[in-house]
Amino acid sequence: MLNKIADLLMQNYNILVLCHVSPDGDTLGSGAALVLALRSFGKKAFIGCADKIAEKYEYLAENVIAEDYSPDFVVAVDAASIKLLGALGEKYKGKIAVAIDHHISHNDFAEIDYVDANCAANCEIVYQLLKIMKTEFTKEIADAIYTGISTDSGCFRYKNVTPQTHRIAAEMIECGAESGKINQIMFETKTKEQITAEISALSSMEYFIDGKAALIAVTREMMRKTGISDTDLDPIVARPRQIKGVLIGATLKEKDGGFKISVRTNEPASASDICGKFGGGGHKAAGGCFISGELEEVKQKFKTACEEYAKEIKL
Amino acid sequence: MLNKIADLLMQNYNILVLCHVSPDGDTLGSGAALVLALRSFGKKAFIGCADKIAEKYEYLAENVIAEDYSPDFVVAVDAASIKLLGALGEKYKGKIAVAIDHHISHNDFAEIDYVDANCAANCEIVYQLLKIMKTEFTKEIADAIYTGISTDSGCFRYKNVTPQTHRIAAEMIECGAESGKINQIMFETKTKEQITAEISALSSMEYFIDGKAALIAVTREMMRKTGISDTDLDPIVARPRQIKGVLIGATLKEKDGGFKISVRTNEPASASDICGKFGGGGHKAAGGCFISGELEEVKQKFKTACEEYAKEIKL
Repeated sequence: MLNKIADLLMQNYNILVLCHVSPDGDTLGSGAALVLALRSFGKKAFIGCADKIAEKYEYLAENVIAEDYSPDFVVAVDAASIKLLGALGEKYKGKIAVAIDHHISHNDFAEIDYVDANCAANCEIVYQLLKIMKTEFTKEIADAIYTGISTDSGCFRYKNVTPQTHRIAAEMIECGAESGKINQIMFETKTKEQITAEISALSSMEYFIDGKAALIAVTREMMRKTGISDTDLDPIVARPRQIKGVLIGATLKEKDGGFKISVRTNEPASASDICGKFGGGGHKAAGGCFISGELEEVKQKFKTACEEYAKEIKL
Repeated sequence: MLNKIADLLMQNYNILVLCHVSPDGDTLGSGAALVLALRSFGKKAFIGCADKIAEKYEYLAENVIAEDYSPDFVVAVDAASIKLLGALGEKYKGKIAVAIDHHISHNDFAEIDYVDANCAANCEIVYQLLKIMKTEFTKEIADAIYTGISTDSGCFRYKNVTPQTHRIAAEMIECGAESGKINQIMFETKTKEQITAEISALSSMEYFIDGKAALIAVTREMMRKTGISDTDLDPIVARPRQIKGVLIGATLKEKDGGFKISVRTNEPASASDICGKFGGGGHKAAGGCFISGELEEVKQKFKTACEEYAKEIKL
């Protein structure tokens, strides 16, 4: 199937690669690597994203992103559903030729949907595709692939990391990827404001289901006070699940009349099952959903759903 | 040189492998892997450590540690100086045949000192040695090597990670190392008390040298209040350096009439140079030292030394 996708890409010229909304290192790394590879074969290619790119990911997007571009061939990367392409998903609905994704919850929306949920990062699939296309891995492509792999695997920390994940990382470092610098930007750089925000967020920790679940809530007011943005909170999302005994960890971030909830679970709990109850999705260990309403109301809805779920699966 | 060390090990029978004090994943992983390999060749071998093993590392030490053992051949792993072997260093002074280490600040103390500072973890050297010895990498050996590599590289995050680091990790996962589980224990598991301690520690953050340096102080009283141990604080040590613009990050932990100081630096600052001013040492990016006295006095001494150092190197 990847061979067929490689053939299709090589047969086309004006190519747009769509990244998902709230773009992260894996969707942008996938998009940038693919665009740079296509350009190395003399093609015109850009990435498109319906959302703004966070500052720390800008090095991936510069020179490859287009706000308005009329492609002949459209590819989506790392998007589990067409909804996650935002406004660009609506614009290109029915016209997306290929979707390359690694989410187990992927809902087909392209002519060809290639999904490999065994990959820790979507960039692992893009790496394989680029190998089939006989791409020369420049420093820029290596940086992009490495960024996707490192960010989506929690810097090689998660259970989904395979020998392949490490071997691709090794090869990308050999091709010039500045792994230390990238990881420093992604995992080691915090502003003083982020530290203040972290203290507030950690102080908001609430435990429920006898300590088997924990949640953190971040309101717009907390964000205004500390001057941090939504992306600044990314590292906090992992925190509730890190607590000994916690199987369901959640971070509630206020957004557009409600709260965006990031769920991280340990076995046997499934983040994707919990988020599914509110129309969201994701992987077994990490998922997301949105609940409208005020903080206390949202918290209660979420806690109740978790308690019911805990009974269902005898947590 | 590693070939000679392999020969010596194969020629001997009763072997003791010494780990450094405040034992971490890399010294215990190195020790456990080496002992298990030696035993697989029919030898009698144990690890020895002058300090207590923290609970999270116990899986590495069980069955291989000996409190009292009379060896014919003594090897030290991951110890930059004989002082770091504590009481066992005193006991075996002049009788240590081989030291295997990856610290650039290594002070020779054995008959053969093999130092490779290009290795992110000492376990990378032990891996090479075990390969020369034609060891079969069992799950237990793979777990030990993986633990050392992952813990000493900040889970593959630091600049010292090379393609070799990733390739050994890949091979260890193939040999059965439970990477996800190990990383969860090492990096993702915190008690509620640790979260409380983290909030206190982060709240104690002080900036100096115009925000180019930051320090955190943890007193015995804070530890008593939150019920945490010294090892519980390991993850906090990295925090001051993570702040944007900070080149020298330090964590002061009260201990035996003074403060143990863990220093983490970004280029061009050198942790090993700063710690050297107080009789300590380490790598360029990470080092440690001890300053006697009360909190305010120790803070002042350390800050003054950093300020002088900053002037010296025009930070």
